[in-house]
Parts: sequence; C-alpha cells; structure tokens
Amino acid sequence: YAVRIGSNLLPTLGTEAKAAGRSPKVALVTDENVARHYLDPAMESLRAAGLQVETAVLGAGEASKTLEGAGELYDRMLRAGLDRGSVVVGLGGGVVTDLAGFVAATYMRGIAWVGVSTSLLGQVDASVGGKTGVDHPECKNLIGAFHQPSAVLADVTTLATLPEEELRTGLAEVVKHALIRDAALFDTLEAKADAILAREPEVLENVVARNVEIKADVVMADEREGGLRRILNYGHTVGHALESLAMEAGGRLGGAAVTHGRAVALGMMAEARIAQARGTADAAVVERQRELLERFGLPVRLDAAPNVDRCLAIMRHDKKARSGRLRFILPEEVGTVRDVDDVTDDEIRDALRSLAADG
Amino acid sequence: YAVRIGSNLLPTLGTEAKAAGRSPKVALVTDENVARHYLDPAMESLRAAGLQVETAVLGAGEASKTLEGAGELYDRMLRAGLDRGSVVVGLGGGVVTDLAGFVAATYMRGIAWVGVSTSLLGQVDASVGGKTGVDHPECKNLIGAFHQPSAVLADVTTLATLPEEELRTGLAEVVKHALIRDAALFDTLEAKADAILAREPEVLENVVARNVEIKADVVMADEREGGLRRILNYGHTVGHALESLAMEAGGRLGGAAVTHGRAVALGMMAEARIAQARGTADAAVVERQRELLERFGLPVRLDAAPNVDRCLAIMRHDKKARSGRLRFILPEEVGTVRDVDDVTDDEIRDALRSLAADG
Repeated sequence: YAVRIGSNLLPTLGTEAKAAGRSPKVALVTDENVARHYLDPAMESLRAAGLQVETAVLGAGEASKTLEGAGELYDRMLRAGLDRGSVVVGLGGGVVTDLAGFVAATYMRGIAWVGVSTSLLGQVDASVGGKTGVDHPECKNLIGAFHQPSAVLADVTTLATLPEEELRTGLAEVVKHALIRDAALFDTLEAKADAILAREPEVLENVVARNVEIKADVVMADEREGGLRRILNYGHTVGHALESLAMEAGGRLGGAAVTHGRAVALGMMAEARIAQARGTADAAVVERQRELLERFGLPVRLDAAPNVDRCLAIMRHDKKARSGRLRFILPEEVGTVRDVDDVTDDEIRDALRSLAADG
Repeated sequence: YAVRIGSNLLPTLGTEAKAAGRSPKVALVTDENVARHYLDPAMESLRAAGLQVETAVLGAGEASKTLEGAGELYDRMLRAGLDRGSVVVGLGGGVVTDLAGFVAATYMRGIAWVGVSTSLLGQVDASVGGKTGVDHPECKNLIGAFHQPSAVLADVTTLATLPEEELRTGLAEVVKHALIRDAALFDTLEAKADAILAREPEVLENVVARNVEIKADVVMADEREGGLRRILNYGHTVGHALESLAMEAGGRLGGAAVTHGRAVALGMMAEARIAQARGTADAAVVERQRELLERFGLPVRLDAAPNVDRCLAIMRHDKKARSGRLRFILPEEVGTVRDVDDVTDDEIRDALRSLAADG
C-alpha cells in the first residue's frame, strides 16, 4: 500500500477512502484533540467524495484504546449500516490509528481502512507494518492483528498543531531510526535540528519520508530473513522498563511527565553506554546521540539513579512474555548496530546508574 | 493446513499442538458439555506431548461467544504466560472453535491454533475456511477474522456423544452440500441414512471427508473466481429469516425448539419450491430433498404459515448489511444449483406459504 507523505494532503482523504471501499459508508475515528483541528476538513473531503460518514470522537489518550472502545465502535458501525465494502478511517496519532485499524481488521472479518497520521510518531512509526491493536489492562497492544491499510496519509501540515511533547516523542524514534540505520539522516538531523523544531514543512517531509523508508526497509527485510526487525527495539528494552517504573511511581521521567519518547531517549542512552563500556562503540557515538537528543528537548539523564533491580525485574518480566533471553541492540557506529544476547546484569546495572551520573 | 478426519484421533492432539507452536504453553478452550466427555483425554494427550495446559471451560451455547468471552480468555492467557509461540486449542463445536480461533487470531497479533471439532456441523462446516469470530448482541459473527488453524482434527468418534438435535443440525448442512454439489453423495446419504443415524464410524468418516472436500473445493474455487462461495447459502436466505422470526417469538420451529439445522431444512424446502414454481427444478428434486431431510429427522413443513411479510422484511434487513440485491441459490437437479437475483416478493411469499401446505 501507499504511504503518501507531503503537505496539505488531508483534502485528498475522500478520494483515498472512496478508492479503498466498495460502498459509500465510512466510519471516521478520531480523538477530541485532533477533531478540534482536523475533523471539519476531513469530513468535507469525505463528503465531497460522495461518502456517508459516521463519526466517532474518542477521548484523547491511551485510555480509549481498549477492547471496550473497540466494542463501542462495532456498535456504531453496525447501527450506521457499515458493510463488508465499507471503510474505516483513523484520523489521529498512534492510539487512534491502532484502534481504528483493529476495528477494521475484525469488523465482519476484516474491512478496508485508511490511516491519517497526525502525529510525528504515527507518521514515522505506526504508518508502516500493518500493526493494529488495543491494550489489555496489564499489557499494551496485547490484543491485535496485522491488517494492512489501503492507504496511509502522512500530512506534515498537521504536525503544526502537535503539542511540543508529542513532537519530541516522535523525534526520539527519528533519532533511533537514524542511529540504527542511516548515518546520512543523522547528519541531516544535526544540521536541520532548528528547522525541524520550527516544523518547516519541506524539512519535515524529507525527514518523514526517510524514516518511512527505513522502517519499511527493515520490516520487509525482516519478512525475508527474520530477526532484522529487532533492531527497531534499540532503546526500548531499557526504555520500557523505565517507563513502567516511572508509571508505577506515578511520577516523572527526565524532568517531566512520563512519555514514551522520554523513556526511549533515556533507554537509548543507557543502551549506548552498555556498548561504550564493552568497547564496541566509541564515546564519540554516544556523545553525538546525547547532543542530538538534548537538542530535541529529550532527556539524557536522571536526577537520581532508578531502582536498578526493579528495572531488571521488569525487563525480565517483559521478556518472559516472549520466552527468550534478554537481548539488546547496541550501537556500533552512527548508522549501524549489533544484536547481542550476552549482556550481563552487572553491565545493565552500570548503564542504568550511568543515567544519573554527570556527563 | 491439514483437516485430519478419522476415528480415535483425540490422542494425537498433543502431537498436533506441539507441532503448531514454538513454546510449551497451550490454552485449551472447551465447553462444559464437551469437557464432560473429552477434557480428560485431551489433557492427557497434550501433557504427554510435554505441553503446559491452561484450561478454560465455557458455559455451553452461543452465549459464550462474545467479545467479553474473548476478553476473559485474553486475561487467562496473559496470566498463564502464553506468548507468541504458544497455541490455542479449541475443543468443541462451532461456538468453541469460532471463539478459540478468534482469540488466537488476535492474541499478540495472532498465534497458532488447532481446532478439534466434536460436532458434525463443526466437522463439515466450521473446519474449513479459517473463519473465526464472536457475536455482537445484534449480529452473529459480526466481529471476527480469517485465521487459518495449523490443523483441524475431525474425530468422528466424538460424534457418539453428540446430542440428537445437534447431529440433525449437522445433517442439514450435509444434505445441503450434497444437493448443491454432489449427486453421488446424495445417493450415498439416501442409501446409508440408517448407518449415519446409528453413527457408524466408517460411514461417518466417509461422509465427513466428502463434505470437507466439497466445502474446501468451493472455498478455494471462490478465491480464484469469486462468488462461487455463495452457493453455500442455499437454504440460508429463508432459513435465517425463519430462525430470526421463531427466536423473536421465543418459539418453536418445525415442531421443536429453534435450531439452525431446522431453519436451514425449512429454508431449503422453501427455496427449492421457488425453483419448482419457476420450472427450473423438477418436482422430483424437491421430493428427494424432502424425503432425505425427513429421514434425518429434520422438519420440512410448518403447522401454520409464517408471517410472510415479516420474513421478507428480515431478509431485506439481513441483505441491507451487505448492500446488494436479494439473491437466491436455487436447485436445478440434485448436485447443481444456479445463483439468481430476480426472485420476486410474490414468489417468496408463495414459497413461504407452501411450507404450511400439505405435501
């Protein structure tokens, strides 16, 4: 399927949705924050294409992404008479598109859907790979399906209204993509950091396009070879543990409320330091990563060391759900990583403690 | 995937489930009726293969096949530590295998599953095509996914304990398969009706095997050409309407509690009579169908004509959910049907009224 990346793409939504379906009914799923800015133009475009739109505006945030949330959407779609030829449109960030995609995957055993990603994270991450799903109270994305969208629109114009913290969350993944796979992109990010933060559309178009290529590349190569996809976990093994730990404490992470982007930034720092300590990455690599993350307003240190044993326990628990060994993706140079499974608990503890050290 | 048909297959379940997965944990989903007879041998086989089994025994009947029911299974599977390499086993009739397959389709974006069909309907119908799903309060199977099982066991030995009425429900589909596609099978059913009703394993093996072939044939041909699958709807357009009507009235159908098999038998009679009235099927075809259905204890007439206008309204409503014209599969001879979309309301009314007429 096509990921369309550009400026002012929202007016093309109607055409895309019409092409995706075989009947005139569409369910438009969005959230209250996104609706404020983009519901009207989206509706206008869908109606102009001759489509009948049933709109569902969710509360903002992860809390909407549940099996019950999916249940409410099935109810509405059934009552609105959506059939096998109908289309679901998810207009929003990853929460909205994950849920919309899941409902499309499971309504009448699967109908077409179109994603309109309005967050940077959604554009560079969720828009590729066909992952859809909802959260279980005890496990994010536990319930889900692979269901490729008919089309994804990544309209960088919609990033103009993205809250600062959500832009940062997307940038954490962008830095990750560059670091694991593309030294030239890393150079670009360093050179254009100000333009990116100023949300200049041309720069964002290029950055999003390159990130989508990287993600698609990795996902497709993984289908052929198997395992390559794991490199996308860089920063996430430690990141998820820090995120869980901070959430348990109802607390903050790196000087602000817990976000996935903050957790991943800190996770990348800890994991890069494991590589540095083993001598498989130069200090200069860690330093370039640190500077770029900081430039993007992402945390690279903690005021106090986290509870390292609790962190380790969380990592092992996360891992248990996948019955394998604790694996890490470690940077070698900017643009290349290696996949290792022999990191010791002591190495992990040292890296976690290093987050609170100066430097 | 393989549909294994035979006698005494349950002891091979462990081997099949082990081959399907990549980790030792299995969720065994069944219902209280089936558990009484087959839970112990199933557990024994799974354990003998070295698998750890988390068992979920549902209440019997369609009421268990809901999104909430799926939610409870996700909870248990997560707590039992099932991972991406684990396997779901559905041991029971269509309700159990539909639900088990759906949970497998959506747990961690899809894990392997093995179906063990213990009902005749499940063996001849649900075991082919990879349809999984749960009911919505207002629409059966609204929520679902296509998710092929790794293997299906159709152990005709388990039909020995099937309640009489459920055997009949399966036989209604068997007669349908023969009538739409296989004159030789129809001859066999006539010749071996007593042996079938006596549940003689060798005869059942042959009947189930032939039915699975027919269904698989139609489903595969449909994937190539499109549309052929519709012939499986023979008897179902009227049948569903009669089923809904009888359920609304909290009542009975053809002299007993409403079942899908009874509704389909009556639906086949009404639809065959449409063909007869148009002159596209001989009276002899209708008569052979009537005799075979009766021999299998299925109803072929009603004491009073159904509310024909309400029936028509239900058919149109069912159809609305698929936004097309009312189509009928009409028999021509035993073994061949045609797909028509020009049946008038008057023809339908006459056919419905004929259900209450003598003969």
